[in-house]
Amino acid sequence: MKNYIKHDEWRVVESGFHAEFNEITESLMSLGNGKMGQRGNFEERYSGKTLQGNYVAGVWFPDKTRVGWWKNGYPNYFAKVINSINWIGIDVEIDGEMVDLAKCEILEFYRELHMQHGHLMRFCKVRLQNGKEIRIESIRFCSITHDEIGHIEYEIIPVNFDGKIKITPYLDGNVQNRDSNYNEYFWDEISKSSASNRAFLHVKTKGNKFGVEQFDVATGMDLEICLAGQKQEISFEPVQSEKYVGLTFEIEAKAMQSVRVLKKVALHNSNNFFPDYLVSECTKSLDAVVGLKMQTLQRAAWKAKWENCDIKIEGDESAQQGIRFNIFHLLQTYTGQDARLNIGPKGFTGEKYGGVTYWDTEAYCIPFYLSAADHSVARNLLVYRHNHLQKAILNGQKLGFSKGAALYPMVTMNGEECHNEWEITFEEIHRNGAIAYAIHDYINYTGDESYLNEFGLEVLISISRFWSQRITWSQNLDKFVMLGVTGPNEYENNVNNNWYTNYIAVWTLKYTLEAIEKVKENAEDYVKVKSELHFQEKEETDRWKDIIEKMHFPYDQERQVFLQQDGFLDKELLSVDDIVQHRPINQNWSWDRILRSCFIKQADVLQGLYFFEDDFDMDTQRRNFDFYEPMTVHESSLSPCVHTILACKLDKIEKAYEMYVRTARLDLDDYNNDTEDGLHITSMAGTWMSVVKGFGGMRVKNTKLHLNPILPDNWQSLTFRIGLKDNLLEIGIGKEGVIIKNLSEKSVEISLFGSDITVAGQEEFVKCTVEN
Amino acid sequence: MKNYIKHDEWRVVESGFHAEFNEITESLMSLGNGKMGQRGNFEERYSGKTLQGNYVAGVWFPDKTRVGWWKNGYPNYFAKVINSINWIGIDVEIDGEMVDLAKCEILEFYRELHMQHGHLMRFCKVRLQNGKEIRIESIRFCSITHDEIGHIEYEIIPVNFDGKIKITPYLDGNVQNRDSNYNEYFWDEISKSSASNRAFLHVKTKGNKFGVEQFDVATGMDLEICLAGQKQEISFEPVQSEKYVGLTFEIEAKAMQSVRVLKKVALHNSNNFFPDYLVSECTKSLDAVVGLKMQTLQRAAWKAKWENCDIKIEGDESAQQGIRFNIFHLLQTYTGQDARLNIGPKGFTGEKYGGVTYWDTEAYCIPFYLSAADHSVARNLLVYRHNHLQKAILNGQKLGFSKGAALYPMVTMNGEECHNEWEITFEEIHRNGAIAYAIHDYINYTGDESYLNEFGLEVLISISRFWSQRITWSQNLDKFVMLGVTGPNEYENNVNNNWYTNYIAVWTLKYTLEAIEKVKENAEDYVKVKSELHFQEKEETDRWKDIIEKMHFPYDQERQVFLQQDGFLDKELLSVDDIVQHRPINQNWSWDRILRSCFIKQADVLQGLYFFEDDFDMDTQRRNFDFYEPMTVHESSLSPCVHTILACKLDKIEKAYEMYVRTARLDLDDYNNDTEDGLHITSMAGTWMSVVKGFGGMRVKNTKLHLNPILPDNWQSLTFRIGLKDNLLEIGIGKEGVIIKNLSEKSVEISLFGSDITVAGQEEFVKCTVEN
Repeated sequence: MKNYIKHDEWRVVESGFHAEFNEITESLMSLGNGKMGQRGNFEERYSGKTLQGNYVAGVWFPDKTRVGWWKNGYPNYFAKVINSINWIGIDVEIDGEMVDLAKCEILEFYRELHMQHGHLMRFCKVRLQNGKEIRIESIRFCSITHDEIGHIEYEIIPVNFDGKIKITPYLDGNVQNRDSNYNEYFWDEISKSSASNRAFLHVKTKGNKFGVEQFDVATGMDLEICLAGQKQEISFEPVQSEKYVGLTFEIEAKAMQSVRVLKKVALHNSNNFFPDYLVSECTKSLDAVVGLKMQTLQRAAWKAKWENCDIKIEGDESAQQGIRFNIFHLLQTYTGQDARLNIGPKGFTGEKYGGVTYWDTEAYCIPFYLSAADHSVARNLLVYRHNHLQKAILNGQKLGFSKGAALYPMVTMNGEECHNEWEITFEEIHRNGAIAYAIHDYINYTGDESYLNEFGLEVLISISRFWSQRITWSQNLDKFVMLGVTGPNEYENNVNNNWYTNYIAVWTLKYTLEAIEKVKENAEDYVKVKSELHFQEKEETDRWKDIIEKMHFPYDQERQVFLQQDGFLDKELLSVDDIVQHRPINQNWSWDRILRSCFIKQADVLQGLYFFEDDFDMDTQRRNFDFYEPMTVHESSLSPCVHTILACKLDKIEKAYEMYVRTARLDLDDYNNDTEDGLHITSMAGTWMSVVKGFGGMRVKNTKLHLNPILPDNWQSLTFRIGLKDNLLEIGIGKEGVIIKNLSEKSVEISLFGSDITVAGQEEFVKCTVEN
Repeated sequence: MKNYIKHDEWRVVESGFHAEFNEITESLMSLGNGKMGQRGNFEERYSGKTLQGNYVAGVWFPDKTRVGWWKNGYPNYFAKVINSINWIGIDVEIDGEMVDLAKCEILEFYRELHMQHGHLMRFCKVRLQNGKEIRIESIRFCSITHDEIGHIEYEIIPVNFDGKIKITPYLDGNVQNRDSNYNEYFWDEISKSSASNRAFLHVKTKGNKFGVEQFDVATGMDLEICLAGQKQEISFEPVQSEKYVGLTFEIEAKAMQSVRVLKKVALHNSNNFFPDYLVSECTKSLDAVVGLKMQTLQRAAWKAKWENCDIKIEGDESAQQGIRFNIFHLLQTYTGQDARLNIGPKGFTGEKYGGVTYWDTEAYCIPFYLSAADHSVARNLLVYRHNHLQKAILNGQKLGFSKGAALYPMVTMNGEECHNEWEITFEEIHRNGAIAYAIHDYINYTGDESYLNEFGLEVLISISRFWSQRITWSQNLDKFVMLGVTGPNEYENNVNNNWYTNYIAVWTLKYTLEAIEKVKENAEDYVKVKSELHFQEKEETDRWKDIIEKMHFPYDQERQVFLQQDGFLDKELLSVDDIVQHRPINQNWSWDRILRSCFIKQADVLQGLYFFEDDFDMDTQRRNFDFYEPMTVHESSLSPCVHTILACKLDKIEKAYEMYVRTARLDLDDYNNDTEDGLHITSMAGTWMSVVKGFGGMRVKNTKLHLNPILPDNWQSLTFRIGLKDNLLEIGIGKEGVIIKNLSEKSVEISLFGSDITVAGQEEFVKCTVEN
């Protein structure tokens, strides 16, 4: 655990340079606007520890799969969002010495990510090897009002000398992925050019033998140079090499005179324009922002975002910073404007996991976007899966399923499976259930039942078909069984009858049956779905009903708990307290030892109780929580949030807070020693759930808000905003009571601690709870 | 299945060139002498389909492990026997055209592996692109009387022209492994030199970061040139480049005059000599064979080998060729003179599986070498494992075991684990049992109980310690259980209580207890073992006894069969007849589908019944055979032999023959489409077992031979020779009876069809069975 980031409500601050942690800081200070993003790298050259990363949403490469031993059904490639043109680069040379913070003496250093305003700021003062001292000040952001624009203001101030400063802002496509499977470069140059204060670079991903689409990315930069605040007429000298274009100039500055480079960059890619038009589009975009007060626009836009979803925690600055940090990065990563995009586990903050889509989106992210953004955002995340339905059916076929059975991939970019560990790729099939669940979640929250007719039912039927083929009739048990699966707890592999998987499978079948009835209300829509899917209603639904009735669910009569899988009780049942010195077990134990143990990586049965809480009474939930919680090591970042939510409900506030702390500052404090690879973006949504669904006790049932808040002892208050249909609500929870502000015009009905209340538009409702 | 190899009793013949099958033929026609070997590549250049391979026993490289996703406990490298100096090469140039069979018109072609004489012979007549026709005749072998010597006689005859022929015999270290993980070259040059008719090349394996020993290999060649049968005084021109040395000469030949190159090669490596001495040792070895009639010696030596172990099958030429082919390659691969060596799955015939040691050695090869070679050969295979005991203990530690618990590696060269599939590396632990079983097998066969005192008991105790830590006490079942294993049937992964593994574990404990009592008879030896292993006899053996008593064995009361693992009956129980069009499932099904199915890759419960047949009555064996046989797809080459043996015993001769055919000509007919990668050397021992233990019905119990032969309908007779202690016996089984010839001086007691007989030295015993 690191502790070098200053606690602050709105900012992430590194004061004094921590070169040893630079890759961590780069991750923390990543920027993005949903369409492009980048790690918090320096603009000038840096030869120290750094992971350079510039990413473009939806631009990826099919990297040939690497395995030790090939198994039938493995995908041929792993789609990965690739490191794209470095557009932030600005070389600075003084007296023949290239400025490089790894080679200077650093006299002062300050770097901050300003979450309220949405920018990255840096200030430093250094002494070069030649004795000259300079100050560097920079501010950078990815515009959220113009999401093709990157904006850099970069200032050099000679401190102890007058003299020439040579500066080269550039665009560079000579970049690699650190995680590439075969150390390949992924880019080819298409064109480069420069004229007066602008330069352009157009690159294209290399050809591949998988028949996968190639992507073009073009960038253009526009430079404006000021000396001591005065705009200069500069005659730039173009510098070009393979996949590189720069514009060099030399300027004579006096001591303490600032040389300021305003580098605006436009970036377009072939997802939106034909390749031939990309460079001219960059020109247009650069023209469009001439004279705009970009920073002012940026602040205003971020202010508006925060209005909808800010969370305030009084009395715990570290928790306050943690939750805003999580929300900020979620908002940077995905804006929901483009249904072709999704949320990679690391967003724009690193390469790990290839930027591909996991079930994290459905299980963790959708609840956040439902509450924190316009409902169209969550809808687009659903549409993304609908768009991939045909590929999910093909994926099913590849594994031997037929008749339109869809198995959504474990990880994907374009709908094709990319993962290549058999126990996950082929067996962690509960992901299919999460995709069905998300449809329910969305409709339940928004009331948008039209989604079922248009898109949802097709997906549900196709997934139900998968379940109905994936199960096996066991003569021995006289039940349907689900053999050879891996549940959410990846510390068990290839088990039979994972309770969670069986439950979500049966739930999917039930929900699909309901959905069919709903859609039938509009006969035309139903006929269309039926015919498109060649759906044999009677025959198929009869089988589903049979499965619903006869599914096997492992259960322990003695303890009255659901069993994670067949045979779970044959293990030695220990508690995490018994293995304190062995944790984390994923670093200290061999894989087989982990598998043989009872220890649980992430909520599994409890994940099911969280999803389907209304199906189980509180005693059942409590018994299962008390049984599984002590065996859970939470070595997935997606785990503690579910435990927080359940613990809040079961009135175990200390446990809830303990779990919350694990998730809220996971990256800020680098709990797992892996923040240098990038941030845990999808688990950030889990943190948000911990607060809103956990402490806030928020649920939505059939579009109606239910609240059962509970406050950790050390918090003075918790205030969060959520959007719900036509309402924007602010829920304030204090020591003495709850205040609900209806910030919209329409009145809203709410269940608070089980009692129904109505809050009129622009009114507030106060509930005193001191007597509790 | 290919059918281009001519059926012949003693020879493997390719008549007419099958370029498309060349890699298969190269595998089939591999040569070896236990110390070095090579694929049946051409001497002259060949640009067509070919896998070049020259291998030196015990010379390997630690190739950095390649995985998609790293798991804790994976080994850092995969030890692989590497393609070594190409010492067979002879370039031939005529009128500026390099002879290359891929670029010539082939007029005649004939290639044969002569199994009786132990050489590879080739004859061909080709028309070059320039219209010139030549004949090539070559004969080549790896000497088994001088195992550092390779011998090539290579003749070129101009057919339709007089003219100059340019010839360059060479040694070339510019070789790669096709299966290298990162396309690396593994060799560095140390030195090269040439003088008159000799040249030398000395190379060394590249440095590695695993702290693993590097190996030096040096080769020397000696040339003798004849024109029309007359030895020529040639002044060779040396040709040298990086890792390459050749000796060129040009010779004027008239049409139909033969130009003959006798290339003798000596090869030494640093396993036996200090690197500095290798080149001079090559010189000595070349000097030593000057004037020797190498071919005559080779024939005589092979004759002697065949005397001990030939098998004759009358009435089935294809079966005859098959069994000799298997025996021939087994004898080429391992001679048992060096306990540092073992038997790679492909021997000297290919790269696949890296030439490393599997449990194949103990389960399949040892029975062959026990009967077919001097008992010291099998003993050395046991000593190999004893030599690796410390590494096996370290391997156990790496996975969390302690106190001297040994887990032998799944695959290894030097005792370190190299395999990197978790479900095998960490879980296919029954291999440990096979290593214990082999000790029993050896002592049972040879009566050499001294082995226990000297080496065996240490290994047994260390393995027993592993079992006693690997099991878990299940409160639920009130039994010991073995969680998370993979049995011999690799189409099940990570199962609980694999019957075979549990059985061999308990058997090991029992046998270790017996062995302790045996060794105690010699108090001094026992004290030594006890102190070396810090063996706490009372405490440790008490636990073993407890495990022996309380181990859980899955069993089906209804069918009265042992269950392959917990939950096996929950599967859909089908027969291979139900999936005829899906076979082989390893090519047609995704991995998860295979795992979910009931289908069995190779004998598992039945492997246990074969190993421990005396523990089970015939009805039990029959019930289990009848239950499992129909579910077994035999997609491991190690499977059918066990079924043959059991089928013979259960009087299912048709099934036995069906299984035998699958194994006997597996490579000759390229059943599995993978002979091009190399031959299935270790499964060849299984073929031998099918014949001798299956049809021959041979068992040895406490050094006494038992015979219960049964003959397939289409065989006239089966005759095999086996060695047993002081006796060499020939068993002839015909339609009318059995003849047992005692070829040695000492008389021998045998149980034939359950009746004891005695056969005096040099006598024979005839048993008529017509009345049966």
